Amino acid sequence: MNNKTALIIGAGDAIGSAIARKFAGRGYTICAARRNGDKLTPLVEEIEATGGNAYAFTCDARKEDQIENLFAEIESNIGELDVVVFNVGANVPMGILQTDSRKFFKIWEMACFAGFLSGREAARYMTKRNRGTILFTGATASVRGSAGFAAFASAKHGLRALAQSMARELGPKNIHVGHIVIDAAVDTAWIQQMLPDYKQRKDNDGVVNPDDLAELYVQMHEQPRSAWTFELDVRPWTEKW
Amino acid sequence: MNNKTALIIGAGDAIGSAIARKFAGRGYTICAARRNGDKLTPLVEEIEATGGNAYAFTCDARKEDQIENLFAEIESNIGELDVVVFNVGANVPMGILQTDSRKFFKIWEMACFAGFLSGREAARYMTKRNRGTILFTGATASVRGSAGFAAFASAKHGLRALAQSMARELGPKNIHVGHIVIDAAVDTAWIQQMLPDYKQRKDNDGVVNPDDLAELYVQMHEQPRSAWTFELDVRPWTEKW
Amino acid sequence: MNNKTALIIGAGDAIGSAIARKFAGRGYTICAARRNGDKLTPLVEEIEATGGNAYAFTCDARKEDQIENLFAEIESNIGELDVVVFNVGANVPMGILQTDSRKFFKIWEMACFAGFLSGREAARYMTKRNRGTILFTGATASVRGSAGFAAFASAKHGLRALAQSMARELGPKNIHVGHIVIDAAVDTAWIQQMLPDYKQRKDNDGVVNPDDLAELYVQMHEQPRSAWTFELDVRPWTEKW
Amino acid sequence: MNNKTALIIGAGDAIGSAIARKFAGRGYTICAARRNGDKLTPLVEEIEATGGNAYAFTCDARKEDQIENLFAEIESNIGELDVVVFNVGANVPMGILQTDSRKFFKIWEMACFAGFLSGREAARYMTKRNRGTILFTGATASVRGSAGFAAFASAKHGLRALAQSMARELGPKNIHVGHIVIDAAVDTAWIQQMLPDYKQRKDNDGVVNPDDLAELYVQMHEQPRSAWTFELDVRPWTEKW
Repeated sequence: MNNKTALIIGAGDAIGSAIARKFAGRGYTICAARRNGDKLTPLVEEIEATGGNAYAFTCDARKEDQIENLFAEIESNIGELDVVVFNVGANVPMGILQTDSRKFFKIWEMACFAGFLSGREAARYMTKRNRGTILFTGATASVRGSAGFAAFASAKHGLRALAQSMARELGPKNIHVGHIVIDAAVDTAWIQQMLPDYKQRKDNDGVVNPDDLAELYVQMHEQPRSAWTFELDVRPWTEKW
Repeated sequence: MNNKTALIIGAGDAIGSAIARKFAGRGYTICAARRNGDKLTPLVEEIEATGGNAYAFTCDARKEDQIENLFAEIESNIGELDVVVFNVGANVPMGILQTDSRKFFKIWEMACFAGFLSGREAARYMTKRNRGTILFTGATASVRGSAGFAAFASAKHGLRALAQSMARELGPKNIHVGHIVIDAAVDTAWIQQMLPDYKQRKDNDGVVNPDDLAELYVQMHEQPRSAWTFELDVRPWTEKW
Repeated sequence: MNNKTALIIGAGDAIGSAIARKFAGRGYTICAARRNGDKLTPLVEEIEATGGNAYAFTCDARKEDQIENLFAEIESNIGELDVVVFNVGANVPMGILQTDSRKFFKIWEMACFAGFLSGREAARYMTKRNRGTILFTGATASVRGSAGFAAFASAKHGLRALAQSMARELGPKNIHVGHIVIDAAVDTAWIQQMLPDYKQRKDNDGVVNPDDLAELYVQMHEQPRSAWTFELDVRPWTEKW
Repeated sequence: MNNKTALIIGAGDAIGSAIARKFAGRGYTICAARRNGDKLTPLVEEIEATGGNAYAFTCDARKEDQIENLFAEIESNIGELDVVVFNVGANVPMGILQTDSRKFFKIWEMACFAGFLSGREAARYMTKRNRGTILFTGATASVRGSAGFAAFASAKHGLRALAQSMARELGPKNIHVGHIVIDAAVDTAWIQQMLPDYKQRKDNDGVVNPDDLAELYVQMHEQPRSAWTFELDVRPWTEKW
């Protein structure tokens, strides 16, 4: 139980997994959580194959008891968490009239409420030790409410405000809270299907490479406390913004 | 049914009532809604005493069916809504560790979700006619996540993003969506109790006068469509910011 | 010398003149200044024809002595200034490599330095009386540095920061400083030539009507000091943003 | 002439020198420029003592010919510039009435105009090769116009807009433009004298360590082009913001 430990909540195939691998490469024991933990088997095997330690968890981050159990189990059995990354998200564009209340609620529950549950639980453990890092994944919609994105922008703005408020409250307790604004398409399976010019973009570094992105999470975590970043933006060189 | 009609959701004793009176003074039939509609009797009587028309509604703006019924009843029996103001809010500062999930949800439900229900319902009627104004009340926490305000700032940022997204989507349909950022204490019964130097501030115009504030809502609604404002801030001359 | 007096610096044919007419309509004696004061003759005659008082001044707002003389002359011979509007601007898009140092300087001198000279001179007189309003005209480039707008955005950001700093410093001295962000094309002779679809846009209220815009300057000036706005944005209903 | 080359303009004793040392540590040939190049002797000697290459230049960055000569000399005799850092600044708080026009101009000339000359000259060389990094040092005043900072905030806002515009224009040419917002006191000789609680703060990591800060410049430069950051903020863990 003397190792460094990182938890990635929302460890999807692209960004979350890349963050996990990157921290594993720095010697962190990885705890990866997603709704269906079975899907994490390849990630865990990959990390272990390179000599690392990784654990997969099934957790619906919108459920308070599941988040509480996740943290309790890790802290009891694996290690004290040094860094927690909240990476759950779901961008579902739709017009305001097409946004039924159930969808509005679900998008918020996933992109914002789950972030609150995760961030607060991290804060509970970290404030006892007066150290730790909590990182949130943001998006264009975190800083801009575009037409057709009312629900998603509302949730992501809410997450950003949570992160900012936590950063101001927890900084003086030696807990580093950060927010990464991804202002572009990331190279995921979903994007491969969505972007008509995916291949051309990809070959040209025109979609965010998850590994390059993940490096920023590690860098923010490793910043000495005399020079902490709360927020940075990231996009490919070709991106219009 | 040929009159101009305004609906204020969250018609509290201070800001909401002032907005109601101001629109009544411009000849609007007033529909005022709050959780306990009985409390609106003095406002209705005051408006009627000055020759205006006003109706009180009991409505929990967090309940989809209640919002839907509210709009349906007004549109059927009173008039086509020209302007809808969403003014529900509740600033409850608390540390992140003290923020239980029920509180986080309730603050969001009141300050953001109810705004979504209200704004979308307004949009449903107004898009049929291609005209109307939808105004949202914001706060300092709409644009800044201060320490101790994680829940409130998260909800108010969420409301602002909703408003911004709706403004961009509905503007080209001739529906004016606006957001007023109140960056200071408003003269309410609650503030009288909270501010130790209330009297001195009040005498010095150092708290926002609800009537002065209400004027901004009327002005935004009356802007010709060649020159619409989405957002403005407001504070007393003495305010530090 | 007992009248209310307004000074518009940068009283061009469109926005500045519209502001002048609007304040004249409220009973203000108008002082209008531009580089070639002769061009103000039609404006002065129009205001006088409707029973108002107006004076034209030739003033290069980039020259400290000319600004000082302008204010001194008005304050000595016409009236104590209640409101000063700085409306000089010049949007000249160009690539960074095409931006020679002389152009960069001139754009700053006109859009920012002249605003400093005007605002500070206004503050000198107004701080003696502890009252007055100083309004600055902003643009999209005040809040966004788009490609091809390095020089203009740099100058307009600089003007906005000046206004914001003055607002914070002078507010507690009962001097209202405001900044209007015009985020769209205004109906001017220049825009008529530049926009290929001008007529269609104009007929559709798709360019900012200077008279509608000018109303915002008057409203900001007339705000009671319990509820002052520092900044608002403005654009036509059809505008993409 | 096959080495990697970095130029730091405004290579003061604290931040600029730390950036120079950091890039030297990565194998870059260092070109350090300041108004009095003689003061750079210790830095050059320190870098050379650790096996690096460094050159000192006397250059007043406000003078176009001096900037042009600086770049020409480096590109001809030392190497093709991979990264250029503009780090000139001067925070001089003063009330608006105390801001004489000469001071306003000089602060802008140093903090903004010199940045334009430096950034544009870098762009001239880098656009020919379609690669390179240009980094600008920002401050709290880059994003906030506080009372008493009209001149400095105006200049720093201007620099930020320049950087943002250049980033948007030059990104698609494979030139990475970045802006680092230092939102706190940095550990410099000047700050040692200014902060009454300097020693306590310093011992507590409460002032920004220039070496920690410099790391961010290197990291931004080394970002792969699929994931470029334009802007990040930085402050110590104890900082109120």
